[in-house]
Amino acid sequence: MRDLPKRMLFGPGPSDVAPSVFEAISRPIIGHLDPAFVALLDEIGGMLRQVFRTQNEVTFAASGTGSAGMEMALVNLLEPSDRAIVGVAGVFGERLAEIARRCGAEVTEVRAEWGFPVPADAVAAELDRGPAKLVAIVHAETSTGMRQPITEIARLARERGALVVVDAVTSLAGIPLLVDEWGIDVCYSGTQKCLSVPPGLAPVTFSPLAMDAVRARGTPVRSWYLDVALITRYWGAERVYHHTAPISMLYGLHEGLRLVLEEGLEARWARHASLGLQLQNALEDLGFRLLAANGYRLPQLTAAALPAHVDERAARTRLLDEFDIEVGGGLGEFAGRAWRIGLMGESCRENKLDRLLDAIRVVTEAKE
Amino acid sequence: MRDLPKRMLFGPGPSDVAPSVFEAISRPIIGHLDPAFVALLDEIGGMLRQVFRTQNEVTFAASGTGSAGMEMALVNLLEPSDRAIVGVAGVFGERLAEIARRCGAEVTEVRAEWGFPVPADAVAAELDRGPAKLVAIVHAETSTGMRQPITEIARLARERGALVVVDAVTSLAGIPLLVDEWGIDVCYSGTQKCLSVPPGLAPVTFSPLAMDAVRARGTPVRSWYLDVALITRYWGAERVYHHTAPISMLYGLHEGLRLVLEEGLEARWARHASLGLQLQNALEDLGFRLLAANGYRLPQLTAAALPAHVDERAARTRLLDEFDIEVGGGLGEFAGRAWRIGLMGESCRENKLDRLLDAIRVVTEAKE
Repeated sequence: MRDLPKRMLFGPGPSDVAPSVFEAISRPIIGHLDPAFVALLDEIGGMLRQVFRTQNEVTFAASGTGSAGMEMALVNLLEPSDRAIVGVAGVFGERLAEIARRCGAEVTEVRAEWGFPVPADAVAAELDRGPAKLVAIVHAETSTGMRQPITEIARLARERGALVVVDAVTSLAGIPLLVDEWGIDVCYSGTQKCLSVPPGLAPVTFSPLAMDAVRARGTPVRSWYLDVALITRYWGAERVYHHTAPISMLYGLHEGLRLVLEEGLEARWARHASLGLQLQNALEDLGFRLLAANGYRLPQLTAAALPAHVDERAARTRLLDEFDIEVGGGLGEFAGRAWRIGLMGESCRENKLDRLLDAIRVVTEAKE
Repeated sequence: MRDLPKRMLFGPGPSDVAPSVFEAISRPIIGHLDPAFVALLDEIGGMLRQVFRTQNEVTFAASGTGSAGMEMALVNLLEPSDRAIVGVAGVFGERLAEIARRCGAEVTEVRAEWGFPVPADAVAAELDRGPAKLVAIVHAETSTGMRQPITEIARLARERGALVVVDAVTSLAGIPLLVDEWGIDVCYSGTQKCLSVPPGLAPVTFSPLAMDAVRARGTPVRSWYLDVALITRYWGAERVYHHTAPISMLYGLHEGLRLVLEEGLEARWARHASLGLQLQNALEDLGFRLLAANGYRLPQLTAAALPAHVDERAARTRLLDEFDIEVGGGLGEFAGRAWRIGLMGESCRENKLDRLLDAIRVVTEAKE
């Protein structure tokens, strides 16, 4: 393969990857039923439980990207005509609702203005209007940089007999996420955000209550590839072949999780919190307007409208071409006027932030 | 990550991987919307067209393993109550039928004895009994080592207005497969077989006729993650974000395809044909019984019942522990009494075959 440019990745994912993760990914592969490989699977499951802060036995990495994790969560829980209450405050909430509809569910959207969290009492009001199989909500809305509080919604949902599904694609290992303590039933993530592993796997966890709901289904899960009951027979003690595991990617995830736990989750959360705030303050000084409401900003993903004098596309192209720096464009209603800047995992380092801010200053300078 | 044993992979996949593919996989990643990356996607699409022998514009690598390719083929074409005729002569034919049922289709199975091909006239008879949306069949049945002739079934199906779906997971780049010439509408494969790239991606191709059927659907595709119309907007000129591409795996596929085309498809087919026959002759000399019918044997995947005096599990464990050689166990009705031996891609080399046969001789020797 020909040479590729070396980039610093400050988009909404993928983030930079540690050299030891690439080293792991390029190890010669062994078979997906080899005793030495299934021992690695057990270790990955154990490390994922620590990172998700859960005791859930059904905790593994699905063989697809974060969006496959989203689909796995919904397609296993929802049957046709089930009611799903979905919080929508950005593109990924919209995606949750869309996938729930494709599962045949009757979807009730609880919407909030982009940049603002979905209010817990609005979710409760919908739950009181009629029973729901589940409430699904995005913890870290990657389209706006908004942090959604989870605990109150989870409590209200469980009190009313609904399962709690949380999208942690951009939050896992970046901000506090306590699956068991918060009462989350199904949680999924992606590898290419705060875990700093290349994209391709979706860590997921299902509570015993969620697995009871899967077992109680009256209809088959619509997806065979993402059928959690079948996959669990491979990741669990039985080791029954389902599909061939993505071996190299799992090597990388193993090393990525080891690095996360070596640093410690609290230290990692603190690093993201501190550098994210530095970035956000600096952006405001440069005339950017942060899109997420104050008090609900993700440190690891900042969406910000550019100063009026800056041509979004041209400035972003200059960042890439002149500085080898990638940031993301705005999504949905913010396309063409905002950036999404990730400081996730290995990209969230003080020296890298300095280089990022220097480059942003240059490309957003007002012409005299 | 700790050291892992070095294995020679002669199972039903994954196969051995060339060093330059691992080198590609471990390149620092760039973003999935980076101009330098989308240029690679275009090249991958172009190389896949050559390997599939197709002009189909919609030709790409799906973000999952070969089974995700199978699900993608069916979930995009089938709507509830559509009739699907599925050839079943092994585990992977069963899987096709199961996934088609989960798509809501009315499935007619045309069964053959394991090891024998599905007869074209039996498929035609079912088509004459009533119209069908598609006929789906496995080209290389990995559970039995049977090669399914495709051309006649494809011709009969198309004459009767049915789309033709072919599972080429184990056949692509190992035996002749001519998607356009044979009249195949949707074909999918996996990376970890004769392409010799680690598992994790599913090359797929959709004909214009198949895409017309997708566009003519009256109901949404049940899977959002595998929705070909949405994914095509990312792989095509629009570059609309759908999900984050598995970047490192795509680097590996790019290099793996380059190696296939450098060797040349015909030379690669000939290499598999020649060494596969050598293996099969040697196994018969050692008292193995080949499970696939004569004239319908895959060179790249041989399923063979062991001589009666050999303990299958114990001999396979010895191969792994004493020789670092992996072969596969039997599936379904052959579990516990047969092996599946792959000579695929990088594993299909004369010096490796010699080492494999030496080891098999040792572990299957009759005790005096």
